[in-house]
Amino acid sequence: MKTKVAINGYGTIGKRVADAVAAQDDMEVVGVVKTRPTIEAKFAIAKNYPLYVTEVSKKQAFVDADIPIAGTLDDLLAKADIVVDCAPGKLGAENKKIYETKGIKAIFQGGEKEGVADASFNAQNNFRNCIGKQFIRVVSCNTTGLCRTLGEINRTFGVKKARVVLMRRGPDPGDSKKGPVNAIVPNPATVPSHHGPDVNSVLPDMKIVTSAVIVPTTLMHMHSVMVELEKEATTNEVKELFERAPRIITVRAKEGIESTAQIMEYARDAGRSRSDLNEIAVWEESINVLGNELFYMQAIHQESDVVPENIDAIRAMTGLTEDAVRSMIKTDTALKLKKWW
Amino acid sequence: MKTKVAINGYGTIGKRVADAVAAQDDMEVVGVVKTRPTIEAKFAIAKNYPLYVTEVSKKQAFVDADIPIAGTLDDLLAKADIVVDCAPGKLGAENKKIYETKGIKAIFQGGEKEGVADASFNAQNNFRNCIGKQFIRVVSCNTTGLCRTLGEINRTFGVKKARVVLMRRGPDPGDSKKGPVNAIVPNPATVPSHHGPDVNSVLPDMKIVTSAVIVPTTLMHMHSVMVELEKEATTNEVKELFERAPRIITVRAKEGIESTAQIMEYARDAGRSRSDLNEIAVWEESINVLGNELFYMQAIHQESDVVPENIDAIRAMTGLTEDAVRSMIKTDTALKLKKWW
Repeated sequence: MKTKVAINGYGTIGKRVADAVAAQDDMEVVGVVKTRPTIEAKFAIAKNYPLYVTEVSKKQAFVDADIPIAGTLDDLLAKADIVVDCAPGKLGAENKKIYETKGIKAIFQGGEKEGVADASFNAQNNFRNCIGKQFIRVVSCNTTGLCRTLGEINRTFGVKKARVVLMRRGPDPGDSKKGPVNAIVPNPATVPSHHGPDVNSVLPDMKIVTSAVIVPTTLMHMHSVMVELEKEATTNEVKELFERAPRIITVRAKEGIESTAQIMEYARDAGRSRSDLNEIAVWEESINVLGNELFYMQAIHQESDVVPENIDAIRAMTGLTEDAVRSMIKTDTALKLKKWW
Repeated sequence: MKTKVAINGYGTIGKRVADAVAAQDDMEVVGVVKTRPTIEAKFAIAKNYPLYVTEVSKKQAFVDADIPIAGTLDDLLAKADIVVDCAPGKLGAENKKIYETKGIKAIFQGGEKEGVADASFNAQNNFRNCIGKQFIRVVSCNTTGLCRTLGEINRTFGVKKARVVLMRRGPDPGDSKKGPVNAIVPNPATVPSHHGPDVNSVLPDMKIVTSAVIVPTTLMHMHSVMVELEKEATTNEVKELFERAPRIITVRAKEGIESTAQIMEYARDAGRSRSDLNEIAVWEESINVLGNELFYMQAIHQESDVVPENIDAIRAMTGLTEDAVRSMIKTDTALKLKKWW
């Protein structure tokens, strides 16, 4: 019997998680929750995801828009084994009270504070620690990217100290309201930023300091990573490590991938759903070991890198498997995350 | 008698250097050189800068545009004590052959390679080393910014190792041809970038590693700086150091300066020529000492931070003074670089 998954919130992350759940053979979407009858609600219906509203008072707007509603969040939670909370940041903490009352397992996203959940989750790094837990938080897109590559580095060479500068995208591509249009915004203006402690929610012993700015782009985040290593490493060993690792791809400027724009073009050419890139893209040319310090630059597709993590978290929490690698392979195969080269 | 200064190239840097020279009481603009009769040529005439062409064949286009020409570069060099070469990057190396033939002193800009000159110049750091030299290169806007703040840090606390991520603007504000429009571009895709070695052309003993990207903005560059210190320092000591230092200002997000956009607005409100900011702006909130490591973020006005450096370089090379501080105060007073707070 398939694990029954409810998705509470059908926006940027929720709609992607729904499609990713639907692509697996061991779980199914029993319903998605929306608050307003937007075009995304119509897509949910078109994809045969039963559509629910957060509360009865929200229903009339959908009726007026001729969009069929299967019931309320309460009705949906009664049918589900687990709920993936993809509500806008900080709302998850409110929703948790409902999930606690119902006694249902829930996955929160990285916009929530660490304390909302029993543990923070990243499949490559702490899958086992999340087995059977009731509340899990899949860390944010940036933290996921850092955990993936720094986790690999740490297991193989040991991280003595990591320093990362994050250049964050402004709005998502489908958002026409926010900026910045022409400015670089220290965000936060204080150093260090919260991203280091967030990595520690998955990798508690890692010494990491981060600073962050927002720049006028919609496509991807970028990280410039500097890592003092415990053990000796060569540039080639790191390149090979990243090439072998799951959910990390290496890209090459010499092949024309000169910016985040060409990375997104790669995802389009690769036929990915929504032209997403679920993997972290590391520029091969940027990988360089100088003495005991490793340097590299990586790009993060903020809309989609956490999607496979949500799928693996579902498996860890509901007992579908206790094997992280098996779960990741299953997830990535279903999502067609083939490494082309 | 005033030092007679020729400006070869009247673009982004050249027109600013010309105005800065004209603002001093110990030097004068004897002429500026342009290759094409653009609107900038008309401004030069309006400002009473005698206008010269690079060679006779270029003259007719100016005659056709009704713009009076005083002669050729050769004619101008015969009248000048020193030439500031503000030709587009790499052309300076070609022009050097002409200057060598004429035996005239020349200042090159940071777009030229280090080897073009007898020394690289930054007023705060190596004024004395450039006294009387024939060929000097004023380092680039980014390198100038790094030399200013890291130089101060190094003299007071000692720099054990500096790590810097540079987020560079795409085109200048007056350029409608170049990008990126919506992408982050590792530039170079290799790490380290050339900026570290360029800092070493002024501060040869500093251990510094840099990586760089280009982001879609026109206003300013931004640096996230991480410095392991030799001596103990407190956050407040560093703040005070930057507040006291010439050509560095501290800005505060809590006062509304939340991005490079508001820094430029500050320069407009401060009544600066062309709304330029010749100083390096450091976010006060970003200054933080954790253990033996200092963090800060700074913004660089790429069009103008090197302008006062060119003025000081003229003084060092032509013997107007051997005192760096005296020259800098004179320059900054004439340019009205008042620290408002």
